[in-house]
Amino acid sequence: MMNKICIIGVGLIGGSFAAGLKKSNQVETIVGFGRNESNLIKARELNVIDEYILDISKALADTDLVLIATPVNSFKLVLEMIKPHVTEKMIVTDVGSTKTSVVDMARQVFGVVPENFIPAHPIAGKEQSGVEAADANLFNNKRVIITPEVNANTQSVATVSGLWEAIGAKVEIMNTNKHDDLLAMTSHLPHMLAFGLMDYLISNDSDACDYAAGGFKDFSRIASSDAVMWRDICINNPEQIVKHIEGYQKSLDNIANLIKNNQPEALEKLFSDAKSARDGWLKD
Amino acid sequence: MMNKICIIGVGLIGGSFAAGLKKSNQVETIVGFGRNESNLIKARELNVIDEYILDISKALADTDLVLIATPVNSFKLVLEMIKPHVTEKMIVTDVGSTKTSVVDMARQVFGVVPENFIPAHPIAGKEQSGVEAADANLFNNKRVIITPEVNANTQSVATVSGLWEAIGAKVEIMNTNKHDDLLAMTSHLPHMLAFGLMDYLISNDSDACDYAAGGFKDFSRIASSDAVMWRDICINNPEQIVKHIEGYQKSLDNIANLIKNNQPEALEKLFSDAKSARDGWLKD
Repeated sequence: MMNKICIIGVGLIGGSFAAGLKKSNQVETIVGFGRNESNLIKARELNVIDEYILDISKALADTDLVLIATPVNSFKLVLEMIKPHVTEKMIVTDVGSTKTSVVDMARQVFGVVPENFIPAHPIAGKEQSGVEAADANLFNNKRVIITPEVNANTQSVATVSGLWEAIGAKVEIMNTNKHDDLLAMTSHLPHMLAFGLMDYLISNDSDACDYAAGGFKDFSRIASSDAVMWRDICINNPEQIVKHIEGYQKSLDNIANLIKNNQPEALEKLFSDAKSARDGWLKD
Repeated sequence: MMNKICIIGVGLIGGSFAAGLKKSNQVETIVGFGRNESNLIKARELNVIDEYILDISKALADTDLVLIATPVNSFKLVLEMIKPHVTEKMIVTDVGSTKTSVVDMARQVFGVVPENFIPAHPIAGKEQSGVEAADANLFNNKRVIITPEVNANTQSVATVSGLWEAIGAKVEIMNTNKHDDLLAMTSHLPHMLAFGLMDYLISNDSDACDYAAGGFKDFSRIASSDAVMWRDICINNPEQIVKHIEGYQKSLDNIANLIKNNQPEALEKLFSDAKSARDGWLKD
């Protein structure tokens, strides 16, 4: 059992990680740290953390692992804040949606990427946010991608993997570029498509949504995602997202051409393959 | 109370229309007609229709209204089949997802658009199909758009509107071009986007879907739609769909440019406006 961990940013993800660890009895003491004391009080009341500490040097004293779970745009500031208190053996890990930029920021702040810096990304979430939504089971059967650098300490990688597995997740090790490419394709691109659709409808006809049926509601759900978080994902993974938008535009061009050129068989095949792929994926 | 109606194509939509009319006691006798007798037997067993008749002249004898609810690609054949039996006062109506092409087919078959030809489109559905999925409440609070031609008989328009309202729908009268434009924007375009995304993912990486989280499942749901139905919608509303794909692509280009040019404030505003528009729409 690990002695002490510190969660910086006790929101939905940081809080659920903590709650999961408490439930599976993995850590003696879970300390919360953040700028908003009332949020930390709430986290304590909900028993998501064992205690909270407002002084960073005390929060990180004798700490085995610190998890940074603050919004992406504060990551560099948080690293700068913890830097004086990070000991050689302390594992520093995170939950950010992009990994290359996170590693770059670690390199900028520490001079090199510390061997105990173990970036991670849990592919899980909820529409709600904040510690009130924290759920010990949030990561059950969900994938967590860990992207250690070449110099990463193997034991630290194993430790971080072990904690995620203990709370139900399936861990996969991958390099940062592959992670950012994959997530750009499967998560960032769909969000851009949904935001783009709402933007298009707004610019065309503000009443258009009145005529949209149930399918539109599901399709557009991710357009209700947090604007700040998605702004930051775009700023932190620009090349991959743009690459996939441009690649996707070619798929759309293809569909438009099949319609313009009256090619029903080709359209039917494309739609049928799409359906098969999705239905096959859902069965897994 | 109407004496007799005939439903040609007793599937999800035709069956739900019939079931709704029976539930609200609007029609003395509802007759089903189709090519698949076992389906008609099932419809009778489910009490969706009162009886079925396999001979079209008997099915349409003394009929006040015939609803064509077969797949779009059979519409012209069905009109040709019923033409010899359509009396002057008989209302002919439909439920097709596109209206301009339906009116064109009526003009081709009858020489002119008959004054009692009242095209309609209920904006409702389910993932399941077939008469087994028929539901008398399917159209509760759903919009039905009726697109009568200039020469349409006013009483017939009122009759068709009345039947839809009796089964819970909100009727709106609109011209065919406006309908096809609106539906291209709010329904056909999103389906093209979802099919396009699956096509893009398949062509890139067949395992990509393994890494997709919950948001992707909702977003891609409409890519599991019926390929034949959507092929026919594309063939029947090509100009509007292509127009909206091309318009949408400009919105997507804009997002890509904001990312390329590192414009976080503009991105945040776009995403925030998208969220507000959707959240505002959901409250209605």
